[in-house]
Amino acid sequence: MKPSDLLSSLLPPAARPGDLLSAVDSPALLLDLDAFERNVRQMQAAADSAGLALRPHAKAHKCVAIAQAQMRAGAVGICCQKVSEAIPFVAAGIPDILVSNELIGEAKARLLAALAGHARMSVCVDHEQQVEQLAQACEQAGSRLELLVEINIGQDRCGVADAPAVLRLVEVIAQYAGQLRFKGLQAYQGGLQHVRGAEVRREAVLRATERARLVVRDLLDEGIACETVTGGGTGSAAFDLGLGLYTELQPGSYVFMDADYGRNETADDGLRFEHSLLLASRVMSEGTGDRAVLDAGLKSLSAESGMPWVWEAGSPSERWDYVSANDEHGILQCRTPGGAKPRLGEQVLLVPGHCDPTLNLHDAIVAHRAGRVEAVWAIEARGLSR
Amino acid sequence: MKPSDLLSSLLPPAARPGDLLSAVDSPALLLDLDAFERNVRQMQAAADSAGLALRPHAKAHKCVAIAQAQMRAGAVGICCQKVSEAIPFVAAGIPDILVSNELIGEAKARLLAALAGHARMSVCVDHEQQVEQLAQACEQAGSRLELLVEINIGQDRCGVADAPAVLRLVEVIAQYAGQLRFKGLQAYQGGLQHVRGAEVRREAVLRATERARLVVRDLLDEGIACETVTGGGTGSAAFDLGLGLYTELQPGSYVFMDADYGRNETADDGLRFEHSLLLASRVMSEGTGDRAVLDAGLKSLSAESGMPWVWEAGSPSERWDYVSANDEHGILQCRTPGGAKPRLGEQVLLVPGHCDPTLNLHDAIVAHRAGRVEAVWAIEARGLSR
Repeated sequence: MKPSDLLSSLLPPAARPGDLLSAVDSPALLLDLDAFERNVRQMQAAADSAGLALRPHAKAHKCVAIAQAQMRAGAVGICCQKVSEAIPFVAAGIPDILVSNELIGEAKARLLAALAGHARMSVCVDHEQQVEQLAQACEQAGSRLELLVEINIGQDRCGVADAPAVLRLVEVIAQYAGQLRFKGLQAYQGGLQHVRGAEVRREAVLRATERARLVVRDLLDEGIACETVTGGGTGSAAFDLGLGLYTELQPGSYVFMDADYGRNETADDGLRFEHSLLLASRVMSEGTGDRAVLDAGLKSLSAESGMPWVWEAGSPSERWDYVSANDEHGILQCRTPGGAKPRLGEQVLLVPGHCDPTLNLHDAIVAHRAGRVEAVWAIEARGLSR
Repeated sequence: MKPSDLLSSLLPPAARPGDLLSAVDSPALLLDLDAFERNVRQMQAAADSAGLALRPHAKAHKCVAIAQAQMRAGAVGICCQKVSEAIPFVAAGIPDILVSNELIGEAKARLLAALAGHARMSVCVDHEQQVEQLAQACEQAGSRLELLVEINIGQDRCGVADAPAVLRLVEVIAQYAGQLRFKGLQAYQGGLQHVRGAEVRREAVLRATERARLVVRDLLDEGIACETVTGGGTGSAAFDLGLGLYTELQPGSYVFMDADYGRNETADDGLRFEHSLLLASRVMSEGTGDRAVLDAGLKSLSAESGMPWVWEAGSPSERWDYVSANDEHGILQCRTPGGAKPRLGEQVLLVPGHCDPTLNLHDAIVAHRAGRVEAVWAIEARGLSR
């Protein structure tokens, strides 16, 4: 018997449509469809009201069914963070994908040029070597790409510094007019997204985007119009919407809201998203003293942005904390010494600390409504990091 | 075209046998076969000399080819940490597997009982409810399981406290003699493995295992012999070997040696393993100042036990540090201001901070020798955390 046969014959899916949510095998990712759909609608409505395009980031979910829901709600396309990540979305017919990141190397350029034969593809650049590799790959594939020059607005990660640097790349792009087209700018600052205080975050967004505004103005002075200025995220979206800078926003986590984003203060006039993403775990050992042992650790959730929240009746638990994550174990602790612990075998729901790398650990997500499983969606781009 | 077809038609493997190591697409896990084979032989020889069985932990690698190499070297079987993790190893013909962990719930008990129809399977328990579920599942499947009672030797995670608690479980197990057999004890303390100083670690091992020794003696006084006492890990193995307590050791990380284990001081008379596991990344953006941007972040390596080391010519780099990990980016920084940075597109090798959750992010590992790819091994149990 081949391993794949024994696997499929012995390991059933964590859940099947119609199952009670409480019966889902553990660990398993859960998606509250009502909350998810409200999140999708709220962000789309906010972008629509502001007259901006919404291009949700698929690096947060890596799931075709979620991208399709975002497209049905009105998204213009999606972002991916790696070229390989885009493959299942292209294959599923998502028509317009921005790889919102630089890529280097012939293998990656060839892959992107091949995808551009199936969908409208765009990608970021910050160096002429990337531009030249992409042009060569497109020439070989007979396809075309749109390029956004990334500008550094304070993350000090990727991106060029100023308008002259953008202009130099625009000139290189213009040399390959048969293959490449300059589409505009990407201006994204990840660090801003998690500034806790709403007013502090608003001011940080204004400062960072001022850099982008100057580049756009300087380019216009040189006769270069940016058809697209893309950026923004779940933490900054409430402020990005009214800047008059972006033509397109690319938030990702808003569909889920992880515990890290839950720690952000929401602006008075801001967007309020709901926690739709949970991880179902179980008490696998009674543990000692005020601790119980859960069957979900670092291989089921990402803890680098803080521990998950224990979730009870739609809120963070007031009696239990998830205090430490081993590879395959999580330690739950009672806040009050001598407090009641969940019993052996009991399901314990968790809000993951950071959604993006958590989704990347799972092959499927269990979509549920009103206490019943409605569907099990594949996370097709899980592991596609090349 | 189905997503799976487009995926396989467009995304080639990261490497093919015969490729130059320097040409491997990134990010990709690499295994130095010479170092790996020396690690496997050294641990096996140490166990053989001490007259102990070696049952390497497959939660570290999740890879059938690696388990098969360990079996060829003389291992008696392997450990898995979750019942689903065992499936690909059973399917590949590994004849003897300990699920070195408790499990709860009918679905998991049924799966383990089904696997016991294909291989000799054992599992840990620390509560009679687990025993009863396993007995029932075995009765339905017509299979048999061997049970080890886990004892808590200071981790304060799973495990019972003392000999009377073991005896109570032995009595429950004895009620299901047609399905279950008491095999012995598991006594494992994960926290000990990473105590940095060799002598401090040795003393901590002696203290923790003294608890286990007392339980074994008390059980013998009651006429209960432990055929197997299993435990130990990569950090404690040098000390576990000579204790006269364990009959079997279950280290996992020794095959790879991650940066976290690299920070342990090796005992004078201890085992010295080599760093065989690397992650191939690339400079995807020149970055700003003394920083360059790599294409490998939290979705390609686990950073919860510290950042990876940059690896040059067989040693930790003396000029570059990997200082921060975003989802799909890593920041490399020069130690000396104004120092040379790796150039755009250059391959940068990293020693992951923590091997187990890093392997769980990848579908394959590129096995190489003398600068050439020798094989690409599937990581079949990746993601199997149920």
